[in-house]
Amino acid sequence: MDTWRVYLSGEIHTDWRERIMEGAKALDLPVAFSAPVTDHDASDDCGAVILGGEDQKFWYDHKGAKMNAIRTRSQIEKADIVVVRFGDKYKQWNAAFDAGYASALGKSLIVLHDPSLTHPLKEVDAAALAVAETSEQVVAILKYVIQGKLDR
Amino acid sequence: MDTWRVYLSGEIHTDWRERIMEGAKALDLPVAFSAPVTDHDASDDCGAVILGGEDQKFWYDHKGAKMNAIRTRSQIEKADIVVVRFGDKYKQWNAAFDAGYASALGKSLIVLHDPSLTHPLKEVDAAALAVAETSEQVVAILKYVIQGKLDR
Amino acid sequence: MDTWRVYLSGEIHTDWRERIMEGAKALDLPVAFSAPVTDHDASDDCGAVILGGEDQKFWYDHKGAKMNAIRTRSQIEKADIVVVRFGDKYKQWNAAFDAGYASALGKSLIVLHDPSLTHPLKEVDAAALAVAETSEQVVAILKYVIQGKLDR
Amino acid sequence: MDTWRVYLSGEIHTDWRERIMEGAKALDLPVAFSAPVTDHDASDDCGAVILGGEDQKFWYDHKGAKMNAIRTRSQIEKADIVVVRFGDKYKQWNAAFDAGYASALGKSLIVLHDPSLTHPLKEVDAAALAVAETSEQVVAILKYVIQGKLDR
Amino acid sequence: MDTWRVYLSGEIHTDWRERIMEGAKALDLPVAFSAPVTDHDASDDCGAVILGGEDQKFWYDHKGAKMNAIRTRSQIEKADIVVVRFGDKYKQWNAAFDAGYASALGKSLIVLHDPSLTHPLKEVDAAALAVAETSEQVVAILKYVIQGKLDR
Amino acid sequence: MDTWRVYLSGEIHTDWRERIMEGAKALDLPVAFSAPVTDHDASDDCGAVILGGEDQKFWYDHKGAKMNAIRTRSQIEKADIVVVRFGDKYKQWNAAFDAGYASALGKSLIVLHDPSLTHPLKEVDAAALAVAETSEQVVAILKYVIQGKLDR
Amino acid sequence: MDTWRVYLSGEIHTDWRERIMEGAKALDLPVAFSAPVTDHDASDDCGAVILGGEDQKFWYDHKGAKMNAIRTRSQIEKADIVVVRFGDKYKQWNAAFDAGYASALGKSLIVLHDPSLTHPLKEVDAAALAVAETSEQVVAILKYVIQGKLDR
Amino acid sequence: MDTWRVYLSGEIHTDWRERIMEGAKALDLPVAFSAPVTDHDASDDCGAVILGGEDQKFWYDHKGAKMNAIRTRSQIEKADIVVVRFGDKYKQWNAAFDAGYASALGKSLIVLHDPSLTHPLKEVDAAALAVAETSEQVVAILKYVIQGKLDR
Repeated sequence: MDTWRVYLSGEIHTDWRERIMEGAKALDLPVAFSAPVTDHDASDDCGAVILGGEDQKFWYDHKGAKMNAIRTRSQIEKADIVVVRFGDKYKQWNAAFDAGYASALGKSLIVLHDPSLTHPLKEVDAAALAVAETSEQVVAILKYVIQGKLDR
Repeated sequence: MDTWRVYLSGEIHTDWRERIMEGAKALDLPVAFSAPVTDHDASDDCGAVILGGEDQKFWYDHKGAKMNAIRTRSQIEKADIVVVRFGDKYKQWNAAFDAGYASALGKSLIVLHDPSLTHPLKEVDAAALAVAETSEQVVAILKYVIQGKLDR
Repeated sequence: MDTWRVYLSGEIHTDWRERIMEGAKALDLPVAFSAPVTDHDASDDCGAVILGGEDQKFWYDHKGAKMNAIRTRSQIEKADIVVVRFGDKYKQWNAAFDAGYASALGKSLIVLHDPSLTHPLKEVDAAALAVAETSEQVVAILKYVIQGKLDR
Repeated sequence: MDTWRVYLSGEIHTDWRERIMEGAKALDLPVAFSAPVTDHDASDDCGAVILGGEDQKFWYDHKGAKMNAIRTRSQIEKADIVVVRFGDKYKQWNAAFDAGYASALGKSLIVLHDPSLTHPLKEVDAAALAVAETSEQVVAILKYVIQGKLDR
Repeated sequence: MDTWRVYLSGEIHTDWRERIMEGAKALDLPVAFSAPVTDHDASDDCGAVILGGEDQKFWYDHKGAKMNAIRTRSQIEKADIVVVRFGDKYKQWNAAFDAGYASALGKSLIVLHDPSLTHPLKEVDAAALAVAETSEQVVAILKYVIQGKLDR
Repeated sequence: MDTWRVYLSGEIHTDWRERIMEGAKALDLPVAFSAPVTDHDASDDCGAVILGGEDQKFWYDHKGAKMNAIRTRSQIEKADIVVVRFGDKYKQWNAAFDAGYASALGKSLIVLHDPSLTHPLKEVDAAALAVAETSEQVVAILKYVIQGKLDR
Repeated sequence: MDTWRVYLSGEIHTDWRERIMEGAKALDLPVAFSAPVTDHDASDDCGAVILGGEDQKFWYDHKGAKMNAIRTRSQIEKADIVVVRFGDKYKQWNAAFDAGYASALGKSLIVLHDPSLTHPLKEVDAAALAVAETSEQVVAILKYVIQGKLDR
Repeated sequence: MDTWRVYLSGEIHTDWRERIMEGAKALDLPVAFSAPVTDHDASDDCGAVILGGEDQKFWYDHKGAKMNAIRTRSQIEKADIVVVRFGDKYKQWNAAFDAGYASALGKSLIVLHDPSLTHPLKEVDAAALAVAETSEQVVAILKYVIQGKLDR
């Protein structure tokens, strides 16, 4: 059976990724998950630590963001499904950027967020094939899409 | 030997898929078949069951159709060959949609239908590399195309 | 101001195309419309009349369908927006094929049909950016999308 | 001389677009600007007003967001340059989505924002060919890129 | 009305191109025709004459063939329709090459040849949307495809 | 080590394919070869035998050619390298068609033919990355390209 | 008659561009030329002058190089033909980068250089459809390719 | 775990490739490296040795460069990451060509060079996601990008 590639983009402060990965594992779904580096400090500092520090904050961030892009763009391009999670804190523009990037590549997009965010996320949701509120719903979608089985 | 990926789209009320899959298996052809969810009720209800019900029939259907699209688009995009079967009942616009979608992606298209449907299917047939009437013919095509052997 | 290219696919037995074209003209919208050959007999017979008759109905239809494809594929590929109309008669598989074809090419899809067809058209509607019931709604969409003006 | 197509995405509450357009006009630059519908209420309500109201906020927004996508995706796809402006209010996830979408299509991306937003926008900036702080800088970029003239 | 771009590839020893171009002109069809350089000697010698002679026949031909490719590839890529004519003399492998090239690019292909060549051209014909025997038929196809009018 | 996919197109009346395959095997090169159906009769008759006979030679050939295209297009699209062999007999337009098709897809093209065919093949050779005269040279190319080893 | 778009990349210290443009003008060839900014200082300083200075040379250069890329990438992508000139001074890695970029996009590439540079440019020349030594040869190529006329 | 494909382009006179490969191996990173043929003489002579000598230096080089392109283009197209190293000697236009080629294909580009080359490489660096000075930094980037682990 084919392995499905699922990229988990967005919010890094709750355990939503773990719940999806554990749920999929419990169901023995043939899914290979990928994700950005979720260690916030590593993600911020990688460019400067590896390639040398920068006095200017802009370039410090720039080097890190580009290095992270080596990982994220490659993984998004290989993914069958891109799940993007929006939380209630922070700007999370990188998550919306990933959603747009995935959408232009024709990836199947699943957006995961609380209903309270419906209005500001309407353009992102409009590009999605499913809008979920919980990690468990994402697992149920993966089960249905991959195995064709629907629990009622 | 390479595995060929064959997507079986369309009619879900007869055993045409099983006959193709069993025929290919009997010949030990290296084919990985995929198909939409053929449990009609699951296919109709998946969106509402997983993501929550809808009062409006339109949105009830919409959520389900999009969820099914996660499966079908991914499988069509990975397929080498897309077989689309039209039966004598129902509108089957999703089958014709799949045929157009596959055709625009440059997939090898095989259409399977009774000769009585030739006229209304002429645009779909025009995009196909083979138009078959029986599942057994599709198996024979797969055997010939993959193994290069022609039974007379 | 840019001209928008809009392809009008599907049902050929009512005046829905004329109503859209006249509505757009009345508003002076910069739209260049295209459409398949809507003379049913010409569309059926073109292949045989130009290239020679066929004894077999299948090939008679085949030659015509391919000749029409020279027109329709070119026009769909050039279109910004593809409107597909489904009526209540006939199989209309060519309309659904066009919708799938346009969708795979990433065209903005508007589907036009009576609500009674919602269920069998759910996969086609799921790929659309708008689902309208009347030609006048399509004109209003074009006005809004092109001019940014919304009549209330 | 060729006309350059520039799409102006993002924040709709200040006059940044006007300043760019007027600046380009004053220099007689051959630029055709496009933009999303910037009438906030029209943008929110277009789907429901044209195609019919919705009880559910989610679907109300959904219809509108998709209708706007007919305009925005077409214009982004035709653009040579996509300028995305981020302000200090609101979520602006649609702006970041557009930036990701444009980036995946290989468009030249210019991001326009206050330095205070550098950190949360680092992934978006990393995909850009220029990061500006003022509309006037964007005009200067357009002048330089199109005419090859640099004012010192 | 749009101009259709039609590339006329293949045989250069009869007046088939002129008959198509004159036929289209007589009907006032909006077609811009293009073609390879049909001056046989110029086509053979262009590389050596412009860039310097070669002792080796292979490189003499090579320089010319590549220079011609600047023209032909560009014109095929811009064409809506590619007509490829096969005559009864010479190898004409460049014509078949052009047909394959156009086919892989998704161009609408019309093949023009005498029925006596049906068997050796079957793979080329299989990729075509129309197989004509005379220039006049090609003109009739263009008239039908562009104007939607069928003379009986 | 990666497996290289090499498609062997063209002439079917000599043992050139076997010599390449045996040469590569003797060197233990990681190459997966593919080829069209080289049983001439099967190739000609496959369409009619599987899908039903045709009175018209044109359609008899047409059905066969399209069925073969399911195999050949898929294999060319998957290939890293396409080798096209031209012999001294027959029209071989399918070989030149394959070369054009492969070239438009950006495949690395190796053409194999006797120097006596240089002039009529100049356009095909111009698209190639190597022009060989013997199967043994093709094997040497594969060895060099894959292993980086050059025998002198 | 169609206008051909020709991008003139590379060396900026001699009058090779002017000679091509004047030659084409004298022949009244329908060519629209484009080129990078050839004012060396403006090209180096544009990023810092428009967007603000940088202490680090790397970022100073980086801002300028990206701003120039807005111009050059857009023009290369629109070009039918890309001419790349290599002189005998400086590293000229940007010229070779442009050649690779154009080649991957499938543009017709003409390389212009002195024979003394043949060896180090062999990979670039290998991707070209013509290798010229003088601007006058480039003009002659354009005349031949566009008008089909060969002066002997 | 996925294997990442990394192509190592450019300078062939120092051990930079070995240091990257050994570093990645020591960390047990799942990377499959590829590279051009780094045996300088073999790379220069391959065309003539396999396909026959040439009197003209230009064609001698040409045959070799094209044969090498079979290897390099295939490997670049399959790569996730392309690392291009520039040294302090030679023209290295093939390295810059590869960088442009990889960039147009959307590959993640890492450029490796001494800071003394910053100015002439600014256009190449501008297209990169990381600019490193040592092989060890490239290894650290690969470790971070693949494993998400950052050593401080």
